Amino acid sequence: MRSYRKELWFNIPTRRAFVNITPLLEDCVRESGIKEGLLLCNAMHITASVFINDDEEGLHEDFERWLEKLAPEKPYEQYRHNVGEDNADAHLKRTIMGREVVIAITEGKLDLGPWGQVFYGEFDGKRPKRVLVKILGE
Amino acid sequence: MRSYRKELWFNIPTRRAFVNITPLLEDCVRESGIKEGLLLCNAMHITASVFINDDEEGLHEDFERWLEKLAPEKPYEQYRHNVGEDNADAHLKRTIMGREVVIAITEGKLDLGPWGQVFYGEFDGKRPKRVLVKILGE
Amino acid sequence: MRSYRKELWFNIPTRRAFVNITPLLEDCVRESGIKEGLLLCNAMHITASVFINDDEEGLHEDFERWLEKLAPEKPYEQYRHNVGEDNADAHLKRTIMGREVVIAITEGKLDLGPWGQVFYGEFDGKRPKRVLVKILGE
Repeated sequence: MRSYRKELWFNIPTRRAFVNITPLLEDCVRESGIKEGLLLCNAMHITASVFINDDEEGLHEDFERWLEKLAPEKPYEQYRHNVGEDNADAHLKRTIMGREVVIAITEGKLDLGPWGQVFYGEFDGKRPKRVLVKILGE
Repeated sequence: MRSYRKELWFNIPTRRAFVNITPLLEDCVRESGIKEGLLLCNAMHITASVFINDDEEGLHEDFERWLEKLAPEKPYEQYRHNVGEDNADAHLKRTIMGREVVIAITEGKLDLGPWGQVFYGEFDGKRPKRVLVKILGE
Repeated sequence: MRSYRKELWFNIPTRRAFVNITPLLEDCVRESGIKEGLLLCNAMHITASVFINDDEEGLHEDFERWLEKLAPEKPYEQYRHNVGEDNADAHLKRTIMGREVVIAITEGKLDLGPWGQVFYGEFDGKRPKRVLVKILGE
């Protein structure tokens, strides 16, 4: 059994963004040398997400509007967490989008479907934050 | 360490449906011969879900109505993804329900609680789509 | 490859609550002796959740109010599942919050970010319920 660990760092200039990290994960799989296994990729921050969906700009705008409807950023005073903070909505948005994905590794590659791409979802940016990649297998 | 991989194919005649796939996963565990490990089961499409809940018809009707309230199918024009597409709502519904489950395998069996059943959630059917099962263990 | 399994039992006196189980998971990792691996922690009941977020009281009140808005407990008759039951909302709330987390184990410790804490989320309490911890690694 082998294991591999890497941190991916981001410093997103806006409050919210979606970044396609699939190529970075493919690099990790290659670097690990693991051919058959499981890859865990999770946000290490609780106002960010890792999720799998389509790399399509219209859909990302839909996600942004939808999340704002389900868990609006403002008014800040609607949230009890926002005492000296303004990011309660980011905790809720990340809950909807999910903290982590687990992806199979098969024959040395990410075993994704035809359109699935892996995204880092930032909901409280403008500072350095990171994602953990851990692979187990052989 | 051993690994096992299988694709399960579905061709759901309706746009939306929930299919209990627990017996199919039990077959995979038996076929794998793995006694202690982790099983990943994920939709390979981004408009479908794999989740664990109750196999109870009333609850499934509640899920359908609830998802339609949180992410309505129509009007199609409300979504920017729907240019030549009509399935933006399916991407959102799958986000709520989740892409994947990870299930422990203990003594050669799915280590589920008393009522937990595994479902394939289809939100944009009427075509062949698939689910990945990957098992790691020994 | 080694594996480890433990059940954690809870009997929450209220219908809903969030319990920080991070110290219990740290005990499991120590007890397992596993230094590099993956830890799965999932609710074994379908009206409960395991999730990672902030251990901050204001945020937990925000979660409670937000979940009641997205999937209200009452009136019970709004849900078709509630025939001889009153917990349909708990199935929906657990869906939003998630069934499980997978956490990397690195150098014999939970590989969490700076603020992430693991919670048991109860949405239909007042009876004994349990969480599964399964660790794979070496």
